[in-house]
Amino acid sequence: MSDSSAPQQPSGDQLATKSQAWSALFSEPMSDLVKRYTASVFFDKRLWQADIAGSLAHAEMLAAQGIIAVADHAAITRGLAQITQEIESGAFEWQLDLEDVHLNIEARLTQLVGDAGKRLHTGRSRNDQVATDVRLWLRGEIDLIDGLLRELQLALVEVAEKNVEVILPGFTHLQVAQPVSFAHHLLAYVEMFARDGQRMQDVRRRVNVLPLGSAALAGTTYALDRERVARTLGMVDEQGRACVCQNSLDGVSDRDFAIEFSAAASLVMVHVSRLSEELIVWMSQNFGFIRIADRFTTGSSIMPQKKNPDVPELARGKTGRVVGHLMGLITLMKGQPLAYNKDNQEDKEPLFDTVDTLKDTLRIFAEMIGGQVNPATGAKEGGITVNAQAMRAAAARGYATATDLADYLVKKGLPFRDAHETVAHAVRAAQAEGVDLSELPLATLQGFHPAIGADVFEVLSLEGSLNARNTLGGTAPAQVRAQIARQRARLV
Amino acid sequence: MSDSSAPQQPSGDQLATKSQAWSALFSEPMSDLVKRYTASVFFDKRLWQADIAGSLAHAEMLAAQGIIAVADHAAITRGLAQITQEIESGAFEWQLDLEDVHLNIEARLTQLVGDAGKRLHTGRSRNDQVATDVRLWLRGEIDLIDGLLRELQLALVEVAEKNVEVILPGFTHLQVAQPVSFAHHLLAYVEMFARDGQRMQDVRRRVNVLPLGSAALAGTTYALDRERVARTLGMVDEQGRACVCQNSLDGVSDRDFAIEFSAAASLVMVHVSRLSEELIVWMSQNFGFIRIADRFTTGSSIMPQKKNPDVPELARGKTGRVVGHLMGLITLMKGQPLAYNKDNQEDKEPLFDTVDTLKDTLRIFAEMIGGQVNPATGAKEGGITVNAQAMRAAAARGYATATDLADYLVKKGLPFRDAHETVAHAVRAAQAEGVDLSELPLATLQGFHPAIGADVFEVLSLEGSLNARNTLGGTAPAQVRAQIARQRARLV
Amino acid sequence: MSDSSAPQQPSGDQLATKSQAWSALFSEPMSDLVKRYTASVFFDKRLWQADIAGSLAHAEMLAAQGIIAVADHAAITRGLAQITQEIESGAFEWQLDLEDVHLNIEARLTQLVGDAGKRLHTGRSRNDQVATDVRLWLRGEIDLIDGLLRELQLALVEVAEKNVEVILPGFTHLQVAQPVSFAHHLLAYVEMFARDGQRMQDVRRRVNVLPLGSAALAGTTYALDRERVARTLGMVDEQGRACVCQNSLDGVSDRDFAIEFSAAASLVMVHVSRLSEELIVWMSQNFGFIRIADRFTTGSSIMPQKKNPDVPELARGKTGRVVGHLMGLITLMKGQPLAYNKDNQEDKEPLFDTVDTLKDTLRIFAEMIGGQVNPATGAKEGGITVNAQAMRAAAARGYATATDLADYLVKKGLPFRDAHETVAHAVRAAQAEGVDLSELPLATLQGFHPAIGADVFEVLSLEGSLNARNTLGGTAPAQVRAQIARQRARLV
Amino acid sequence: MSDSSAPQQPSGDQLATKSQAWSALFSEPMSDLVKRYTASVFFDKRLWQADIAGSLAHAEMLAAQGIIAVADHAAITRGLAQITQEIESGAFEWQLDLEDVHLNIEARLTQLVGDAGKRLHTGRSRNDQVATDVRLWLRGEIDLIDGLLRELQLALVEVAEKNVEVILPGFTHLQVAQPVSFAHHLLAYVEMFARDGQRMQDVRRRVNVLPLGSAALAGTTYALDRERVARTLGMVDEQGRACVCQNSLDGVSDRDFAIEFSAAASLVMVHVSRLSEELIVWMSQNFGFIRIADRFTTGSSIMPQKKNPDVPELARGKTGRVVGHLMGLITLMKGQPLAYNKDNQEDKEPLFDTVDTLKDTLRIFAEMIGGQVNPATGAKEGGITVNAQAMRAAAARGYATATDLADYLVKKGLPFRDAHETVAHAVRAAQAEGVDLSELPLATLQGFHPAIGADVFEVLSLEGSLNARNTLGGTAPAQVRAQIARQRARLV
Repeated sequence: MSDSSAPQQPSGDQLATKSQAWSALFSEPMSDLVKRYTASVFFDKRLWQADIAGSLAHAEMLAAQGIIAVADHAAITRGLAQITQEIESGAFEWQLDLEDVHLNIEARLTQLVGDAGKRLHTGRSRNDQVATDVRLWLRGEIDLIDGLLRELQLALVEVAEKNVEVILPGFTHLQVAQPVSFAHHLLAYVEMFARDGQRMQDVRRRVNVLPLGSAALAGTTYALDRERVARTLGMVDEQGRACVCQNSLDGVSDRDFAIEFSAAASLVMVHVSRLSEELIVWMSQNFGFIRIADRFTTGSSIMPQKKNPDVPELARGKTGRVVGHLMGLITLMKGQPLAYNKDNQEDKEPLFDTVDTLKDTLRIFAEMIGGQVNPATGAKEGGITVNAQAMRAAAARGYATATDLADYLVKKGLPFRDAHETVAHAVRAAQAEGVDLSELPLATLQGFHPAIGADVFEVLSLEGSLNARNTLGGTAPAQVRAQIARQRARLV
Repeated sequence: MSDSSAPQQPSGDQLATKSQAWSALFSEPMSDLVKRYTASVFFDKRLWQADIAGSLAHAEMLAAQGIIAVADHAAITRGLAQITQEIESGAFEWQLDLEDVHLNIEARLTQLVGDAGKRLHTGRSRNDQVATDVRLWLRGEIDLIDGLLRELQLALVEVAEKNVEVILPGFTHLQVAQPVSFAHHLLAYVEMFARDGQRMQDVRRRVNVLPLGSAALAGTTYALDRERVARTLGMVDEQGRACVCQNSLDGVSDRDFAIEFSAAASLVMVHVSRLSEELIVWMSQNFGFIRIADRFTTGSSIMPQKKNPDVPELARGKTGRVVGHLMGLITLMKGQPLAYNKDNQEDKEPLFDTVDTLKDTLRIFAEMIGGQVNPATGAKEGGITVNAQAMRAAAARGYATATDLADYLVKKGLPFRDAHETVAHAVRAAQAEGVDLSELPLATLQGFHPAIGADVFEVLSLEGSLNARNTLGGTAPAQVRAQIARQRARLV
Repeated sequence: MSDSSAPQQPSGDQLATKSQAWSALFSEPMSDLVKRYTASVFFDKRLWQADIAGSLAHAEMLAAQGIIAVADHAAITRGLAQITQEIESGAFEWQLDLEDVHLNIEARLTQLVGDAGKRLHTGRSRNDQVATDVRLWLRGEIDLIDGLLRELQLALVEVAEKNVEVILPGFTHLQVAQPVSFAHHLLAYVEMFARDGQRMQDVRRRVNVLPLGSAALAGTTYALDRERVARTLGMVDEQGRACVCQNSLDGVSDRDFAIEFSAAASLVMVHVSRLSEELIVWMSQNFGFIRIADRFTTGSSIMPQKKNPDVPELARGKTGRVVGHLMGLITLMKGQPLAYNKDNQEDKEPLFDTVDTLKDTLRIFAEMIGGQVNPATGAKEGGITVNAQAMRAAAARGYATATDLADYLVKKGLPFRDAHETVAHAVRAAQAEGVDLSELPLATLQGFHPAIGADVFEVLSLEGSLNARNTLGGTAPAQVRAQIARQRARLV
Repeated sequence: MSDSSAPQQPSGDQLATKSQAWSALFSEPMSDLVKRYTASVFFDKRLWQADIAGSLAHAEMLAAQGIIAVADHAAITRGLAQITQEIESGAFEWQLDLEDVHLNIEARLTQLVGDAGKRLHTGRSRNDQVATDVRLWLRGEIDLIDGLLRELQLALVEVAEKNVEVILPGFTHLQVAQPVSFAHHLLAYVEMFARDGQRMQDVRRRVNVLPLGSAALAGTTYALDRERVARTLGMVDEQGRACVCQNSLDGVSDRDFAIEFSAAASLVMVHVSRLSEELIVWMSQNFGFIRIADRFTTGSSIMPQKKNPDVPELARGKTGRVVGHLMGLITLMKGQPLAYNKDNQEDKEPLFDTVDTLKDTLRIFAEMIGGQVNPATGAKEGGITVNAQAMRAAAARGYATATDLADYLVKKGLPFRDAHETVAHAVRAAQAEGVDLSELPLATLQGFHPAIGADVFEVLSLEGSLNARNTLGGTAPAQVRAQIARQRARLV
């Protein structure tokens, strides 16, 4: 990326030989190695739609301001329509010699429509053009990601709806802590992905600001109407005001939005990694809490019994990729003086790969968790399969209701610390027998404390424990249902 | 941090011997090495004000709900007031054996007010307590940081006001590009720090949500009014609605807010690193654009001529520290299953150090740039000193108005590419002479193109170039003054 | 850190007022805020022993070269001995105004021995002095870490020795794959920590090189014998040659060794995190493979049944801390021009914290895994407790010998793909029954293929499977014992 | 990547339909989305040469051990030779359905040579196969990188040879410190890249170890001779001993070598970023110390005067990319339990991109610094152009010999602190005049101290200062020439 802001651009021919000589100042052409090292067209061509959209808005404004003729505007519009077709059909020929997506498109436009094409670049430079393109493209991707985040949340809510009464052991420190509703557990992830959606919206507000008109770095001498361009491109705030970069030096050099997006994306992947970790543990034979559909697993060509949770594992691994890109982008910007430096060209590949990873991962997780719509029945099929029995058995194994027994004793008048100690003795005895507290005979329990009555078994039941936690945010089925309703309403 | 949610807590004595035996289940005390490895009191005691504020709000609600007696509430309030005094005066004795800030305060409270102190922990656990404390503390720090960001912006605006007409070479690729107003350059940083302020506000909204009431992980069996606690603690949104974590598992395990804050802090430091890089370059003898006051520099005990820009260098270096903490926090959370795991204790030190680094850096930069108020005069003194002459000389050195000459020729009828080439020849000739374009005689210039007239020297002047860039966001003094007015209005 | 290299240093008094005025060039003293921001004495005082060792070697060489008098050397030696005593006894008074460890010690030396103290700094500067100090200190820490790595390996080998015949399910994808010896599993970690030890040795070679004599940046005008200093300080290679930085600019600005050490430390912590993950999973009730001693766990003040693996969790979390420091150090050095810049002062805190974290973690893991020596018996006690039965049960649950059945059929003449498919059907049938392959009656097995005979049950046994993998690096007990012997020999 | 270790493999046909059904256990084919998400063939096909080399060595050993027939070995050799041709000619058809490079090649082999092809996989699995492939490939790349590092060092040495007497200001804190030889400055980078080379050699030793024979995770039941395979593949240490992974679980799950390589690569890029920063600053008009050849710069299509140092800027930016990959890889491995998990597949892309970035950057820097051989003359041309006059002028500007004046006064009997202070006054006076110390008349200098004589001007000269620093590692031309000779000898 280099600076350029001109009333007229070199002809296609001149552009095509640009690498031979930038100007009379240059005594030798760029070497092929350097060309390959510095060119970006093979990855930034993905910005073509944004580039054309930006050019159309710019040309429309130039014409409206009388900077170019109406006929030129018409020619530009026609040429860009043809280029759109060529790119979509695969007929467009991308050239390394033309360095980047911008020059490739501009050179072709000039071939197609002549002088009008040369006038498109009036009052802009590649510095503000590329910043505009990346922002437009990223805004669209954020919207797609937002939709995919919602689909994943919806999938989680749907599975939750069917599992409100299913009890699994809630863990702290991966040790059995207290019984929780499986739906409640899944809704914790809905909270996480909902926050991710909020963050993406916050990022979007700062992405959706127009650098065009900053020109190379100092603004331009043409009487541009930058707010008009912003409005054409949908760069407006909630009150409908045009959002325009207010400082040209900042406009061409700012990459905050890329870092900020990557940070938000990293958090999405951290959440995916946590969910993946749980899916993998839950699928392990010693847990056996769930199964995921065979199409999300792979077998082994040698071990006939294997069914491996490849998708969650790979997703967990891809967290590293996205976090690495975030770190790369921050390192990139650290210590850069103003305004535009070529370092910035390195913003694109990490950003592109982050977007791809996020979209693929969210899409596949939504389907893996919630299943796909069966066109025949209209119902979703093939999401995770829950083994309620295994969950329940595990919850019964870890003395998950020990706290409830302590609470029971407190209600019978014991100080909590004594109750806690009494229960610890009971747990030790049950461990020695290899049974749960609820499996100890009443007489044995009474040996720990005479206040224990037959009603203790209700307290020691998983359902009793669950139902008792009936405050906002708690795991009691009534609370969980209220949360499902809230999320449903939000996600519609 | 471990789980606990209890109607009554162990007495101070019991707490004091906690490390000897958690319960009858434990057959040996914790070793000293382990104690030191796992304790957090030596760093988390910094949360004491948040811990006490959270406890006061919790106790008030417990009393209002009839869960504890009014007299207990009064005793708790009295005890916490005394503890506040003790900590402020340095009389409070922090004990490693009591592991963390929470148990240290609670044990002391029970010493002071007996059974009422034991009732404070009713319906909460350390898992939700620590999450609440960190959020309350961080919210306060964000508000301080927000103020410091504004002070730094104000300092930049003040220096900008005095330097609207001062011209320095705008660089791209650290090569002279086009003349810009020094004020315009400084305002680019105001844009960056303004975005930082916006991001901090976005983070604040997600920090300012109450986990308390999530208890250990599953909610609690007591009839808490969590929204009342939230309101007492000021955890309300812009519409005045209480902000409460809606899922107990998420409430105790979420550390998004710490990562999100660290990401926003990293961007602040990236901006500081860019500004520092420029200050260092500008202070280098070959530039000599500015000086910073002696109290922000150090000399050398051996080289008598040295005056080193230690503060900007150190600040640039501290970017690494803050970015490192961000990386550490993300690594920490990657792949953690629900709900609370001890790993999370590692969230505090990076967060504390990030906050300290940010506050110190912003404070010192505001003063280094803008100076300090002289109490005698009420005026600020001792900010950066601008060498307008050196800036101007540099702007005159790099053919900064070559683009303007090309534009001039275009206006005389040349196609831009020809004009560009013509100017390149002129630049080459001027380079050979070691002079600027404006220093070539008219006859020489006309040798490059006969259309060049005497009016060309206006175009080749730095002021002419500056004034011509008079569109929104451009560097023309009129635009710069408009931006200063806008920022002033925003920052008041 | 600033530059200084002088035949004589300012007197103690002058040093004490240094912050008031570096030289006649400075018009104002450093502000308190700046002093705090730039001073390093509160963390770099930890380098005092290295600083004194370096000064002793430097003074000895200065005397030997005739640059200072023998009497001065004697006075310096005496003075530094007293300072050593003062620091060890806590009597030494560290002063913020003296900025760093070097000036604090030098100022005190001059107080104690007068002019001789002022001559110590001849031919050196703080730039090369601090680089020397950090290298000397880090070399010592690497040696301690190396010892701790060996202790941890030894602990793993000792536990392995007792568990050669204990079978647990080897996992891939956390799915049961094939039976492995528990000793074999532990020895995998010995391999990792052995590689860590090798890496530390490689780092040590590059740490153990002398910058002293580089002076401020360009070398010095005094006839130093740098190789003599290197030999005095033990900075020699395996052939006994003195190791000296060969370029003064590189000598004062190189921080590769800090980054390289941090990278090696990060890998240690990655290995610790993997082991921790396994310990946590193995301790979870659904696995129940091991227990760690109570003194490495914590309970819950509310849930009486809890015994949480705090130490492995915290260690897993501390991986983030160490990785974060690596990232911070790299960010610090990125893009720094030569030679010394103040940014570099930021190298110390991450390095110090990395060393502390590593040492604490390795020490605690060696004891947690292998136990402590009981002084009464001389035997180690209190390491991890292995539940061989639970491991075996788990290995029996996941069709771990399915591959062996396929191999059996191949030996009976089936093409492998058919054998694989046949076994898959058998596994499906066994799953439906909820039994292992070995629990199916012979008749049933023969239903899948008539070639199956009674000898199949040997193949389906865990021991049969284990013993069959008897190649170098395989899990057969004979191989495992050979590896234990090799490691034992290496670690003595 | 999934496990497989088998005497015979599925036929090509079966492999081709693998994605439809792993075995009778799978009830549905893998979805296209999942296939794309989990397949690696489009990036791991780059490993094809390593894959074939590993297979040839494995087959040779199987035949030597009598595990497969000699005829099978011959068929395999023939088939793999044909596949090599097909891949090199572009005729080979890579199939997504075959997931990865291994299955693509194996399926084709079986098509070509039938049953012999099915026997190749005897005693190995994809887990150990991929680990072997990556190590073989990386070893080759390290050797290439080592060569490129040497070329870059040689280029720096060659430019140094021509610039021993060229004086530029040595900077600390980017402030003029003392005069240094430009050759000395360049040699600092030779030291850095030499250390990089050492580190690459250390990494290579740990890369060059054979995992093959670890099979899926537990070793294999076939009588493999793993050391024979290692020797065939050149995996031997300096003493010629075969290097073989000694633990099968570690063998398939270890990715230390990838992280270690990435850390070494990050340091290379940190050095490149420092050199780039200096090149960019030196090219800036206010410095004007050097020029790089036009083919490594780009101009601007709008600003006719621009010649931008795109290559150094881009290289500085690419530091972020490589560091990001390091962080990604560490994140990937953090907390992974043994043995192989699908996460590990994510090791390849960052590794590949790191290698590509390193090789391109080193190659282009060697040429940019040192130039290219002109075939006509055999001489190198087109490296950096040094402006010795600009360097000298800058060295004369910053009072670079102030320390020398202080030393002069010390030799005349002044205590250093007084001398330092005296010189500070002289510097202040010279600053006020806008001249260098050496430009002050003798009478003026004597006004600062009467001991100053006419011989002072020798001391104040840049050459005098340079020559005086004549100790090992110092900047005196004699020392610099000695270093050049040492480096030359090492690099031949």
